Amino acid sequence: MLEVCLLGTGGTVPLPDRWLTSCWLRCEGKAALIDCGEGTQIAIHEQGISCKHIDAIFFTHYHADHTAGLPGLLLSMAKADRTEPIMIIGPKGIEEFLKGVMLIARYVPFEIYYQQISEKEQSFQVGDMTFTSFPLRHSVPAYGYAVTVNRTRRFDPAKAEAAGIEKRYWGLLQKGQTVEANGRVYEPEMVLGAERKGIRMVYATDTRPTERIAEMSENADLLIAEGMYGSEEGLEKAKKNKHMTMQESAALAKKADVKQLWFTHYSPSEHKPEEYEEEIRGIFERTVISKDGQRIDLAFAHEEEQ
Amino acid sequence: MLEVCLLGTGGTVPLPDRWLTSCWLRCEGKAALIDCGEGTQIAIHEQGISCKHIDAIFFTHYHADHTAGLPGLLLSMAKADRTEPIMIIGPKGIEEFLKGVMLIARYVPFEIYYQQISEKEQSFQVGDMTFTSFPLRHSVPAYGYAVTVNRTRRFDPAKAEAAGIEKRYWGLLQKGQTVEANGRVYEPEMVLGAERKGIRMVYATDTRPTERIAEMSENADLLIAEGMYGSEEGLEKAKKNKHMTMQESAALAKKADVKQLWFTHYSPSEHKPEEYEEEIRGIFERTVISKDGQRIDLAFAHEEEQ
Repeated sequence: MLEVCLLGTGGTVPLPDRWLTSCWLRCEGKAALIDCGEGTQIAIHEQGISCKHIDAIFFTHYHADHTAGLPGLLLSMAKADRTEPIMIIGPKGIEEFLKGVMLIARYVPFEIYYQQISEKEQSFQVGDMTFTSFPLRHSVPAYGYAVTVNRTRRFDPAKAEAAGIEKRYWGLLQKGQTVEANGRVYEPEMVLGAERKGIRMVYATDTRPTERIAEMSENADLLIAEGMYGSEEGLEKAKKNKHMTMQESAALAKKADVKQLWFTHYSPSEHKPEEYEEEIRGIFERTVISKDGQRIDLAFAHEEEQ
Repeated sequence: MLEVCLLGTGGTVPLPDRWLTSCWLRCEGKAALIDCGEGTQIAIHEQGISCKHIDAIFFTHYHADHTAGLPGLLLSMAKADRTEPIMIIGPKGIEEFLKGVMLIARYVPFEIYYQQISEKEQSFQVGDMTFTSFPLRHSVPAYGYAVTVNRTRRFDPAKAEAAGIEKRYWGLLQKGQTVEANGRVYEPEMVLGAERKGIRMVYATDTRPTERIAEMSENADLLIAEGMYGSEEGLEKAKKNKHMTMQESAALAKKADVKQLWFTHYSPSEHKPEEYEEEIRGIFERTVISKDGQRIDLAFAHEEEQ
C-alpha cells in the first residue's frame, strides 16, 4: 500500500488556510517528502504524521516556495532526537542549496546525504518505493517524480512441479533467489506466475504541460499536477511564468487515463479553486479539487482488475 | 505612538496554534520587525499587517527559530512589488547568515542593506524609533533591543519672550534649528520647556537573566521577555540551555518597575502558559501571559503623569 498525503497545496506564498506545496508518501514503514515549502513542519504536525521518520526528501526545483521549510524541518527532526541520516535528492545546484540550508539551520546532529539528479530520467529507491525523476518545463531546471511500488509475482506451484524442483527450494526461489542444487540451476522465473500491476502515482508541478507527463502518468492510480490557475486570464500568466492551469492538467490526466487527478500549487489569487470543479470535471471527470491534508491509501488492484 | 504586535510567541519549534517568535513595531509610518521565525509572513498576513512596508529587521541571534522565515518574507515583499531597500541588523555573522538566506530565496528584486552590531551597545534609527542593542547571555552571541521614541520638548513662549527673541524665529527654534540674526545666536534650548518622557519598550529573548536587562527596562512602558518555562523543572533546563523562565522574567520586570510585562518564546512543552498566571502575578502583578497577535498602542504619557 502507498499512503499519500498532500501536506500543502499552495504556490508562491502561503495563505493562512493553505500551506505551501509538499507531498508526503509512506510505504511499508519508509516515508518520503516531495518538496518542503515554508511551514511544512507544522503541516506535518497537523496531519499527525511523525516528522522524525522521513527517510528522503525530493525537490522538484529550488524556488523557495518549495524549499524554505527544510531548515525548520531538519531542526524539528533533531529536537525529536533523530540520529538516522536523511537523503536529499534534487536537480543540479543541490550542493549550493544545502549550503544555504545549513547556514540557516546551523547545526543538525545527524548526517545529511544528498544526490543530484544527473541523468534525464533517474530512479531512486526508498524502501519499496521507486522514485523516477523526469524533466519538467519550468523557468529553472525542474523535475517531476513518478513513484511506483512493484508487486511481487505470485508463486505458481504447478510450474515448480512441472520443472521438477524439490519443495525445499520453493521458498528461496519465491523470494527471488537463484538456487544451485544437484548440479542444476533453478531460477525464480521457473516458479513465478505472471507480472502483476503495482501502484503508480505521479507528481508534476511547476511546469508547462509536456507529453512526457502524460506518458509517465499512463494509467497511474493518481496524478498530482499543478493547478496554478483556473480563470480565463490564468492561461496567459501560466504561459509567461511556465506554470500549468487546471484545464491543462485535466487534459493531461485525460490523455493518460489516470484513475484520479488531484491539484496542487494553487496561485494565492485562486482563493476558491472549487469554483472550477464543474468546468474541470467536464474535461476529466475523475478530478478532485484537492485541499491541504488530502489523503489516500493506494492499494494493489484486485487480481480480476489486472 | 508606538504600535507593538507580537506576531509569534513560540520558541524552538512552531505549534499549529503558535507561530515562532517575531515582534512587529510601527511608529509614524515606519515599521520594523525583531526576529523572523518560520511562518512569520503568514502571521503578518493574519494580523492584517502589510509585509511590504517593513523598513528594517533586527535579529536577536541566528538560531533558526528566530530566522528561518526571512527568505519567504523577502519573497512575499517581492511579490507585493516592493522596490525600496530593506535594512537587516544583527550580531556578528550577519554576512554568512544572509548568504544562506539568499541561497534559499535566490532572487530578491530590491536591495538588502545590512549592518552588523559591532559595539557592546549600539543605536540604530528607524524613523522616530531608536533601537539600542545590548548583549544578552545565551549559548551564542545574542542581543536584546530597547526601542525608544523620544518626545519633542514643548515650546515655552514665556522663555522666548524673556530672551527677547523675535516671534518670526520661534518656529525655526521650536523645530530644533539654531538661528543667527541681528548679530546674535539663538539656540532651541532658549525656547524649549523641560524634557518630556518618551516611549520605551524592551525585547529580551533568548537569555539568562542579567542586570543589564533590568537596567535597560527601567520604567519602560513594556518589557517583552522570555517565558520559555513556567514549570518547576523548567529552571534547570533554562540554566542548561541559557533560557529564562517566566518567574525570572517577572523578577526582572519587578526590579525595573515596568508598566507591563509580556512573555514570548514559550517552549513547545508549555502548551498552556496561562496556567502560571496566578503564580507569576504573585511576583509581578502587571504581567500579561501574552499570545500570538497580542497588540498594544503605546502612547506618550499625559503631562501630569510625567
